[in-house]
Amino acid sequence: MDPLDVRVNGRPQAAIPVTSRLQYGDGLFETVVMDNGRLLLWPEHLERLVRGIERLGLDPIDPVILTAEAEGLAIKQGLAILKVMVVRGGLGRGYRPGPGASDRMMTTWPWSDRKIDDEAPVFWCRTRLARQPLLAGLKHMNRLEQILAQQEFTDPYWEGLMQDTQGWVVEGTMSNLFVVEQGVLTTPALDHAGVAGVMRGQVMKRAQGLGMAVRIDSLTSKRILEADEVFLSNSVMGVRPILRLGQRSWDRGPVMSQIADALRACGDAPAL
Amino acid sequence: MDPLDVRVNGRPQAAIPVTSRLQYGDGLFETVVMDNGRLLLWPEHLERLVRGIERLGLDPIDPVILTAEAEGLAIKQGLAILKVMVVRGGLGRGYRPGPGASDRMMTTWPWSDRKIDDEAPVFWCRTRLARQPLLAGLKHMNRLEQILAQQEFTDPYWEGLMQDTQGWVVEGTMSNLFVVEQGVLTTPALDHAGVAGVMRGQVMKRAQGLGMAVRIDSLTSKRILEADEVFLSNSVMGVRPILRLGQRSWDRGPVMSQIADALRACGDAPAL
Repeated sequence: MDPLDVRVNGRPQAAIPVTSRLQYGDGLFETVVMDNGRLLLWPEHLERLVRGIERLGLDPIDPVILTAEAEGLAIKQGLAILKVMVVRGGLGRGYRPGPGASDRMMTTWPWSDRKIDDEAPVFWCRTRLARQPLLAGLKHMNRLEQILAQQEFTDPYWEGLMQDTQGWVVEGTMSNLFVVEQGVLTTPALDHAGVAGVMRGQVMKRAQGLGMAVRIDSLTSKRILEADEVFLSNSVMGVRPILRLGQRSWDRGPVMSQIADALRACGDAPAL
Repeated sequence: MDPLDVRVNGRPQAAIPVTSRLQYGDGLFETVVMDNGRLLLWPEHLERLVRGIERLGLDPIDPVILTAEAEGLAIKQGLAILKVMVVRGGLGRGYRPGPGASDRMMTTWPWSDRKIDDEAPVFWCRTRLARQPLLAGLKHMNRLEQILAQQEFTDPYWEGLMQDTQGWVVEGTMSNLFVVEQGVLTTPALDHAGVAGVMRGQVMKRAQGLGMAVRIDSLTSKRILEADEVFLSNSVMGVRPILRLGQRSWDRGPVMSQIADALRACGDAPAL
């Protein structure tokens, strides 16, 4: 699939130098839904991006410029996807960068027509996530673990669950995980591994708004299999139930549906 | 510093698409010394690259083409550095790549004039290496840990030692580690973290050729501080002693010198 638009530092430009810091995955990204001129959850995406820039020690990016550029791209499309990348500046060969301001890159992509079948199974990945507190939570560009994990499965599986090297279940390869146990909503702690998804934060917020108890905890695979409902979230798909996982299957549950309604009502997810 | 030459799939070309898999650090690299037409330790670099390509599931690269291209670049320079990158093919947005053969990129760089002062101290980095057996040993492009570690120190420190998240000392940010204890040479095991340097392999081979006992083991910081000699290796610098580390200092020892002589005599390191 080709991008609709490609911008580097605000200019239409399809390529970057081979010697860019991309050669070490030295940057961050955000995947944002553009819905008829609106950037869904833009303040939340921006906040995570800024937090990542600080944690990795990248030169700051002006959020006003970033926002103006993203909005300019959003008004050109109906429903589409924006990928924002911020890469450390400075070219060269070694791990220590030369001088240079961070680069921002934006690509826009058609909304995928591929309907995810909720009945499709979810895979248990063998690829484990390393425990690295310094990078946990960030949407950084060092993504070999997710790439290896996605190589493990194909259709009909639409997503795979990943454990860390200690066996805790952390997330999907491209989504965050929630379980519902006797009405309580729990999502895995992300202090040692995983990406703190923007939609994950929004799911917790909307659930609290609905009066639900929300917890962050370490989750075992056993506990997931015993949960009343299990679902996944990300910015593009919103929330999706896991209805089949290994030998276990679930019926659709009421909690995720309530949250999905709240997300749509609040404009966090596209009203498809 | 600018590269002398930049090639993408054999053609002079300075840029690659923004949508390249570099956006996830989804590739491997080698740093090779070019010495008056010769590529030092080329078979060893090629072997590690091929092993990495297999482990990451990249489309294979024809080693004959890779070698011919590298040799073509080497005959243009005296003493210089070649960086070879192999990046997964396929463009797009997500972790699962589209179809496409792997891309090979080569850049060449002037030999650095910066003399490392052996008396300069080595830093103990606080940044820890995550334990990830699936990626350990490979010279892959997910290098945020090394980048964070190098941010911790500056002149006069010329290198930093890194522990893994369990506290084992694994390597330098850009080099492998050796200790000499009562004539026995030991280098850290790299089953869970670290890069299996080509020069590390060569140091072990030359030491064995000199009749030394060579071991691979887990190393604590205490054991390093108590060693008779400590030194670092990489393909560009060969071997360099650690003479100052925190409060500890060492005199130059005989074992590393013997190995350095053997490396030069065998053509593994440039005869500067």
